[in-house]
Amino acid sequence: MEKSVVVFSGGMDSVTLLHYVKETYGGPIYGLSFYYGQRHGKELKFARYWGEKLCKEHRVIVLPFMKELASKSALTSESIEVPQGQRYSRENQRITVVPNRNMIMLSIAVAWAEDLEVNKVFYAAHHNDREVYPDCRKEFVTALSLASQLGTYSHVEVLAPFVDKLKSEIVRLGIELGVDFSKTWSCYVGEERPCLRCSTCIERTEACLKNGIKDPLLTDEEWSRAVEFLREVDRDKIS
Amino acid sequence: MEKSVVVFSGGMDSVTLLHYVKETYGGPIYGLSFYYGQRHGKELKFARYWGEKLCKEHRVIVLPFMKELASKSALTSESIEVPQGQRYSRENQRITVVPNRNMIMLSIAVAWAEDLEVNKVFYAAHHNDREVYPDCRKEFVTALSLASQLGTYSHVEVLAPFVDKLKSEIVRLGIELGVDFSKTWSCYVGEERPCLRCSTCIERTEACLKNGIKDPLLTDEEWSRAVEFLREVDRDKIS
Repeated sequence: MEKSVVVFSGGMDSVTLLHYVKETYGGPIYGLSFYYGQRHGKELKFARYWGEKLCKEHRVIVLPFMKELASKSALTSESIEVPQGQRYSRENQRITVVPNRNMIMLSIAVAWAEDLEVNKVFYAAHHNDREVYPDCRKEFVTALSLASQLGTYSHVEVLAPFVDKLKSEIVRLGIELGVDFSKTWSCYVGEERPCLRCSTCIERTEACLKNGIKDPLLTDEEWSRAVEFLREVDRDKIS
Repeated sequence: MEKSVVVFSGGMDSVTLLHYVKETYGGPIYGLSFYYGQRHGKELKFARYWGEKLCKEHRVIVLPFMKELASKSALTSESIEVPQGQRYSRENQRITVVPNRNMIMLSIAVAWAEDLEVNKVFYAAHHNDREVYPDCRKEFVTALSLASQLGTYSHVEVLAPFVDKLKSEIVRLGIELGVDFSKTWSCYVGEERPCLRCSTCIERTEACLKNGIKDPLLTDEEWSRAVEFLREVDRDKIS
């Protein structure tokens, strides 16, 4: 019955993580979500839903300074467009990197853990992200966890149990754990409905397809369009 | 002529660091200071002074969430008193620890460095602090620097050039570099004038004495009281 701090947005990966930590450790969860000026603030609506459902306490921390310091990221700057119609690759997605975002969020999570005398902090870095986002790599997690253990009285560990998993494997785990994916949000663009065309929409469609499920967030019509669009992207890549 | 990001408050150590980085690297300095609800917000007045004088750009970042997450620290909570009349020791000063403060400040500094494409971030951890503040220790700096290099495209290093220096040695260096210490602030308590009795006041008095100077921030009368108080503390310790 260990206590944990879990960093989560309202995306598929971190909501699955929340269920996984609940299932594996069983103790009370202190949930932490962040608003750093991201376009897809909509995911926070879902974060709040899960926070209420699965956490002993859930806080949404506002980072007003991120927009100012991350002037070159399409996720926080309205004048830079989120790339659409492409899968993730280091070149085309570099613009979606919010510099050092995970270290900032994790350092705040570690502070809260230290204040609560909890010695485990979880976040949902996964294998698909490692190419584009250096702060999702295993070696980063290991070094940061060491710094965190050395820098706190409670020797707080930072853990990323999905760091070797592909997104499709996380979705499989989520299905096993009974996660309601209709209450998760991924799209980077930040409109009322998912754009179906940004890299994270494409990745989400693919992960659902690989598990033989329809994305439960989407209407039947949206799902058809999403699948069709994924085929187009792959055709373009081959030709 | 390398560019640097320097984290500094308005204290003796970090103001000396600012001069040291200027002298050693010569390139433009991007200065970063933080208001995290500390009682001694007064130091920021001096931080602004030095930011204007020595930095190409200086930002003061507000961390509104610190007060909430650091509920047990005397530095951020008005209901907990700052201990007075004692030197630093792990037991009596634990209450002045703001959990994981340095990792939070450094992770934000690293984000700014990454955005600016600068690959060096400096902060003023020093040897006297290592006993009480785990995030001032050399092994912490090394691990965090590794995480930062792994987590950024610019491979940003975190450096603490004073990590092996005693405060009195930093003051000596400051004297050599011509730092105007009358424009620095140390006291934790946050009154109009330094309290002369908290651990950081005592340490400051001692560092000045060891270098044969009067603390230029203090009036002659305050200085006499500060020296007298230091003698009392040491007498009490011996008897």
